[in-house]
Amino acid sequence: MQRRPSAHVREGSHDAPAHALGADPDQDTAAVIGTLLARYLTQRREEAARSSEQFAKDVIDLLVDVVLRGGKRTRPAFLWWSWRGCGGESGGANAEAVLKVATALELLQACALIHDDLMDGSPSRRGAPSAHVAFADRHRAAGLRGDAESFGASAAVLAGDLALVWADDLFQSAGLDAKARRAAASPWQAMRTEIIAGQYLDLYGQSTGVDSPEESLRVAYLKSGLYTVERPLHLGAAMAGAGPDLIASLRRAGRSAGVAFQLRNDLTGVFGGSGSAGEPAGEDIKDGASTYLVAIALQRARAHSRHEAERQLRDAMGNTELAPEDLRQVRDLLTALGAADAVEARIEQLTADALTALEQARLQSPADERLPALVRRVARRHPGS
Amino acid sequence: MQRRPSAHVREGSHDAPAHALGADPDQDTAAVIGTLLARYLTQRREEAARSSEQFAKDVIDLLVDVVLRGGKRTRPAFLWWSWRGCGGESGGANAEAVLKVATALELLQACALIHDDLMDGSPSRRGAPSAHVAFADRHRAAGLRGDAESFGASAAVLAGDLALVWADDLFQSAGLDAKARRAAASPWQAMRTEIIAGQYLDLYGQSTGVDSPEESLRVAYLKSGLYTVERPLHLGAAMAGAGPDLIASLRRAGRSAGVAFQLRNDLTGVFGGSGSAGEPAGEDIKDGASTYLVAIALQRARAHSRHEAERQLRDAMGNTELAPEDLRQVRDLLTALGAADAVEARIEQLTADALTALEQARLQSPADERLPALVRRVARRHPGS
Repeated sequence: MQRRPSAHVREGSHDAPAHALGADPDQDTAAVIGTLLARYLTQRREEAARSSEQFAKDVIDLLVDVVLRGGKRTRPAFLWWSWRGCGGESGGANAEAVLKVATALELLQACALIHDDLMDGSPSRRGAPSAHVAFADRHRAAGLRGDAESFGASAAVLAGDLALVWADDLFQSAGLDAKARRAAASPWQAMRTEIIAGQYLDLYGQSTGVDSPEESLRVAYLKSGLYTVERPLHLGAAMAGAGPDLIASLRRAGRSAGVAFQLRNDLTGVFGGSGSAGEPAGEDIKDGASTYLVAIALQRARAHSRHEAERQLRDAMGNTELAPEDLRQVRDLLTALGAADAVEARIEQLTADALTALEQARLQSPADERLPALVRRVARRHPGS
Repeated sequence: MQRRPSAHVREGSHDAPAHALGADPDQDTAAVIGTLLARYLTQRREEAARSSEQFAKDVIDLLVDVVLRGGKRTRPAFLWWSWRGCGGESGGANAEAVLKVATALELLQACALIHDDLMDGSPSRRGAPSAHVAFADRHRAAGLRGDAESFGASAAVLAGDLALVWADDLFQSAGLDAKARRAAASPWQAMRTEIIAGQYLDLYGQSTGVDSPEESLRVAYLKSGLYTVERPLHLGAAMAGAGPDLIASLRRAGRSAGVAFQLRNDLTGVFGGSGSAGEPAGEDIKDGASTYLVAIALQRARAHSRHEAERQLRDAMGNTELAPEDLRQVRDLLTALGAADAVEARIEQLTADALTALEQARLQSPADERLPALVRRVARRHPGS
């Protein structure tokens, strides 16, 4: 059931700690995170299977599959390069512990994805059925008693809870020294509440149809910007013992880059094949999510008295039955109203702000190049979009 | 929105730490836990409201209400008296930290209740609408967009996640000394996964209709016995620095008492006005939960070839439309088959086992009397049943 990522185990490497991690984290952070995830999940599965094999094979194996199937390991990379840029040493005493904290971010993310897909009713994720759908499918296939959808939803709640609890366990048992642990405690605590608050504001926005561009940027920041970039950078810097000025610069960079990331995600979700997190195209429109893209379009339609365009957009928002041709029409409208260009311009501005803040941080080499490259990567157009 | 419990603040008490906690924890553990809960939730609400007042007033206030509205604070009391019985001193340096860890158990329990009610579709809890129903009601009252039930379910997932995350934050920030913290880490970690595993087995049991009495006892143990009694006792003992033998005796006591607690809960849920956690009567039957009570009844019906009785019971299990008179018939059947008496006998045996194990533990005074009294309380018939 567990599909391990193809970690590049470099036999005979001169770098002992890198060897133990399956790869050099400076060369291939994602591979190291994949190795640590697989290792941690295997260990926890063994423990849990002792009290219930049923739980292990039903719930844990699904979580393992969600976590190892894909993901660019963006959050861990931000954390790692922030730590390196603030003086953390790749072969140093805290390095493996820091990588474990970075790995814990992927478990938090797994909880967010599983619960989010359930809340949005998203059918798939990373090219496979989403958790609640997979659980419901199994219920049906096994011919179990009761409603398969309701079973799927319940099991997905529990799978997400498990990821949330294990994220914390991994953070707590990462093996940080006392100073790094103390420094990381506060951003770690804040971030976990922020993720939940952001998900709620997203949900609430879908119910109220908030369409002020400013409010939609705030939701983008809270729902994903904060925990995708700002908090990972904050955590990395804090664990490296960075002072308040350096932390402030990195957080500022993270705030801009995080919003740019989410705006790119919004654009790709509508115009690209699929969003960067692997959800099918058009979901935001069908969910009625309060994206900046749509908020800008509505604002422009109003400003130019394009009432028919405004009505069409409003009708499409939250319409779960939207056909592919309707979605195409929405895309054309967003382009015609100049909203797509406006979002591109905003992403460019945010990226520039982030890069300036990173420059001001005067990071140590090679993070001074790797971190800006990472910011550009999350903000740039995806291939084909 | 926050209804604070009526903590007995004893002005002029000679006991300084007790005074700071609103009451002497030896005299009124529940009041102290209520005070600490209110204090912690108020502080977290203030922090969270700075980034989103909407989230604070919608989600946090509901969580505060669930947590402060009721509950006997059974789990914290087990933890406290185990700690005291193993040498922890009421006015000692770790006392407040230990009480905070005990308080964290109530937040875990809040997550379990909120997610459980959602999964079971339970309409009420502790005399008020359950979380998902309350959220859906508000959605309707405010005339928001989209499906109210689906909004309610999503918001309840998030409210439970928040309780789970805050439980951990409170545990981590309780202020235990390094030794107590290290000792508590492993039961704390194990317990959180066990709760989720237990909830899954309960859910799975409803779908398969497991009816072996032994399997149903295992589910009772995993779904609530472990985290209601055994792990709280384990945590208290571990934080007091107890050795392996003492811990083993307390865990043994907790295992028996925990199953007795759940069996009593099962009986009260069918025969009493409502279960001790405040869910309406008959829910277990309607949900098709694999209780020992029903498993024993089915076993006896089969053994005595009472096919009609077996059929009636099986038809009632998982029938969400069960009318009050059908429920009365199920009750009569359970009594006629001797299942209710068998469960009473099992509770008595388990209670005796727990009390013997507590005696072997040779706890310090006054825990040597308080802990057995607590075991008797959770296992005895509720007034009116």
